[in-house]
Formats: sequence, structure tokens, C-alpha cells
Amino acid sequence: MLIGKVVGSVVATRKDEKMQNQKLLLVQVHDQQNKPKEQYVVAVDSVGAGLDEMVLYATGSSARQTTLTENKPCDAVIMAVVDSWDLGGDNVYEKWAS
Amino acid sequence: MLIGKVVGSVVATRKDEKMQNQKLLLVQVHDQQNKPKEQYVVAVDSVGAGLDEMVLYATGSSARQTTLTENKPCDAVIMAVVDSWDLGGDNVYEKWAS
Amino acid sequence: MLIGKVVGSVVATRKDEKMQNQKLLLVQVHDQQNKPKEQYVVAVDSVGAGLDEMVLYATGSSARQTTLTENKPCDAVIMAVVDSWDLGGDNVYEKWAS
Amino acid sequence: MLIGKVVGSVVATRKDEKMQNQKLLLVQVHDQQNKPKEQYVVAVDSVGAGLDEMVLYATGSSARQTTLTENKPCDAVIMAVVDSWDLGGDNVYEKWAS
Amino acid sequence: MLIGKVVGSVVATRKDEKMQNQKLLLVQVHDQQNKPKEQYVVAVDSVGAGLDEMVLYATGSSARQTTLTENKPCDAVIMAVVDSWDLGGDNVYEKWAS
Repeated sequence: MLIGKVVGSVVATRKDEKMQNQKLLLVQVHDQQNKPKEQYVVAVDSVGAGLDEMVLYATGSSARQTTLTENKPCDAVIMAVVDSWDLGGDNVYEKWAS
Repeated sequence: MLIGKVVGSVVATRKDEKMQNQKLLLVQVHDQQNKPKEQYVVAVDSVGAGLDEMVLYATGSSARQTTLTENKPCDAVIMAVVDSWDLGGDNVYEKWAS
Repeated sequence: MLIGKVVGSVVATRKDEKMQNQKLLLVQVHDQQNKPKEQYVVAVDSVGAGLDEMVLYATGSSARQTTLTENKPCDAVIMAVVDSWDLGGDNVYEKWAS
Repeated sequence: MLIGKVVGSVVATRKDEKMQNQKLLLVQVHDQQNKPKEQYVVAVDSVGAGLDEMVLYATGSSARQTTLTENKPCDAVIMAVVDSWDLGGDNVYEKWAS
Repeated sequence: MLIGKVVGSVVATRKDEKMQNQKLLLVQVHDQQNKPKEQYVVAVDSVGAGLDEMVLYATGSSARQTTLTENKPCDAVIMAVVDSWDLGGDNVYEKWAS
């Protein structure tokens, strides 16, 4: 999985019938120090992620292992909202930091 | 999935028998700000996409999850035509913009 | 799929038993404007492609969807010989151009 | 598989139900000479790896072949803790070196 | 598949139970002209490859199609030892060259 930030959403009405009712979010990939990378992915949201939330996404056939995406032509899925992570003992990101 | 633009088509008469009658489109990958990237893919079209349309495509085994591509040696499929997307609250692309 | 040119072949007598009698071709990847890229792949040939022919190849699990490669440890297959393609309305490549 | 170092961990309470109780570790990819690369992955830990340990991880559908990750939306798994490796006859890394 | 050279081996005693008794080799990727690339992979050896031998390896789910790797968390397998290859009509590598 990679870490990313939800930065937008994609609307597509004409799509494969299996993809109806799938929320498509635009995810900017971040590195381990929480800097945005020049890489993005459009992922199906299986956890109700919101704009600006940090998430984990899975790709490839693993993206079809959620109830929502099973057997669908979907190669990326948001499967977790990140609360926090640490790197070398230091806290890098804390969702609830005030 | 990644966002791309249909920029052409590929003709191939001598091909694996399972690939007969599959429309093969040349898709230029775009980034999240709608700038073309130095990356392309040849994808089977499952949604009737036309030249210059913005689309989403899926790769790998997920590309075989449409009715059209099931069990076929196809590793990329256009599974949606994009109407619009936004980035950080701003509209980046609008298909029907006048 | 990506577009490539058959530029050579690989001989390997000591190989997994499932790979016996598989023709292995060296394919140079080309970009959408038919310029060679610094990227190659060794692919099983399922369509009888010859030296210098432009082909399409599929990778990953999709490379095992031809009769020839089913259930084999093969992650790239040539599944079409390209006749022609166009880009933005212009013909880029024409196999039978005189 | 690639070699990496466990450099941190990721906490995510809101996640796909299949991912409950999965320890998510942040792995920095290393090259064959044990230099860290500008690449990381968040992987499920199937072997009880600890901070600063060198590990091997597998990606894609292969990441779902452990008892822990079967049928889960997980595309990277730590499947081994590395004791040592050599390169061209020289020992590059030795876990128990004093 | 890509061409690589066996440049070392990896020892890991603490690993997923399915990976017991699998020989793990360090493979340096080579380009089509036999120059080493800045890329490596740790692969299971299914053909008895030795140090310094040129090999072909397959990745992803295709790496699980050998008898040795079936259903295992392994995403790269050496499935052939290369005898020779040619490029544009010229012999690039010949294992038995004197």
C-alpha cells in the first residue's frame, strides 16, 4: 500500500456497468515524510474517506478484495483512513493533532 | 485507475483469437492537472469512447473484469468516460464546458 | 498493452518444464510516435511475429490468457502484430507502406 | 521480492473490515548494496518483524498468499526477515554482526 | 520477463512457512545489450541457477506458476537460464563462448 491524500473526485456517468455507484476519488501520493509526490491515482473509496484525509490505497488485483470492488474493473481502492504514522521513532503525521 | 485522453487507435489483424473484434485505442496519460504525460497505453475500449475524450483506464488483471475483456490477453481497459474532476476544490476539467 | 518492435530472440534450454517449446522474443518498447524507448521485455510469441515487426504485448496475469501461455510462468506475451496506428488523426505507422 | 528496512508503522482505525488486526509497517526499500532508496511501501507484517530489521516483502497478488493476508485488500506483505546477503562473493549485510 | 545476472543470495530463517526451503537469489537486471541496470530483484530459483549465470525471471502472479512457487508469497521467479540472445541480427551474449 502507499500513503496518499484525497485531493479531489472524478465524475463519470458513462462507465462500465459494474462501476455504477462507485465513488471515484483523486488521491495524491505522499512519501514517507508526508511530502506530496508527482504521482496520483484515481481510486474507489471503500471506507468513506473525505477531502484532505490521508489514506492508504491498494492496487492491482488486491484492489478487488473489498466487498465494494469485487469482480469489478477497478485497480485501485482506498482501504484505510490513516490516523498517524511514525518514522524512525518520530511521529510524522497525526490526524487529530490540534 | 489513471486519467487519459484518447489520441488514436491501433489496427492489428493478426492477433490472438480471443482479441478479435476488440477496439484498441491509444490513450495518452494525463496528470491530475490535465497535463499530458510522457506515457501512453493501448487499451481495449469497453465504453464506446471517441477520439479526444478524457477517460479512465484500469490495468492488470482488473482490465479483464469487463464483459468484453473477460479471460482475454488484455492488460488495459477503458472503463469510463470522464465528465469532470476537481482538485483541491477547483474544477480542473469539465467535458461540457462551453 | 504497449507497442514494441521485435529486435531479437532469446535461447534458453534449461528452463521450467512448462516453458518448453515457447519462442522467446526480445521486444524493444516504442512510444506512441514510434520512437524506441530505453525499455525492453522478453515475451512469449503467440502470433508468429517476425524480426523487425511492430507488435503489441500484454503483461502480468493477462500474459497467461492465450492458449500457449495458460498457467505458465510467463509475464509477457505478444498477442498482436500491428498493421498501423494513428495519433491525433495522423498516420504514425503503416506496415504495408511502400 | 525487494529488500527493505522497517522504519516505522502506520495506525489506521477506520479501514476495510478485512484489514482489522493487521499490523501495518512502513518499509524503506534498500538497494542490493544496502543503500536506502527513495521508495517505500506500507506492508502487512506476517513474520513479526521489528523496527530497524531488514526484511523481504512481496507485492501484488503474491502479497495475499500468506495465511494472514488471504483474500484481503493488501498488496504488500513482509514475508521474511533477512539474516544476511552477499553480492559477488562479498557479504553485504549480516544481521548478527557484532 | 527480464534478463538478469545472478549476483548473490539472500539468507532468511524467519520467514512465512510457505517459503521454507526456497532458494532466494539476488538478480541484477541487465538491459538488452547486456549492460547491468540500477535495478535488482530477489527471486526464487526454480531451475538451479548458479552465481554469475544469466537468467530470465518472471514477476507478479506469473511467478507462482512453477511447481516450486505455487500458492506462495513469492512475486519473482527465475524460470530459465539463458544460453544466448541476439539483437538486430548480432549475437549479444553467448554462454558457451570460449
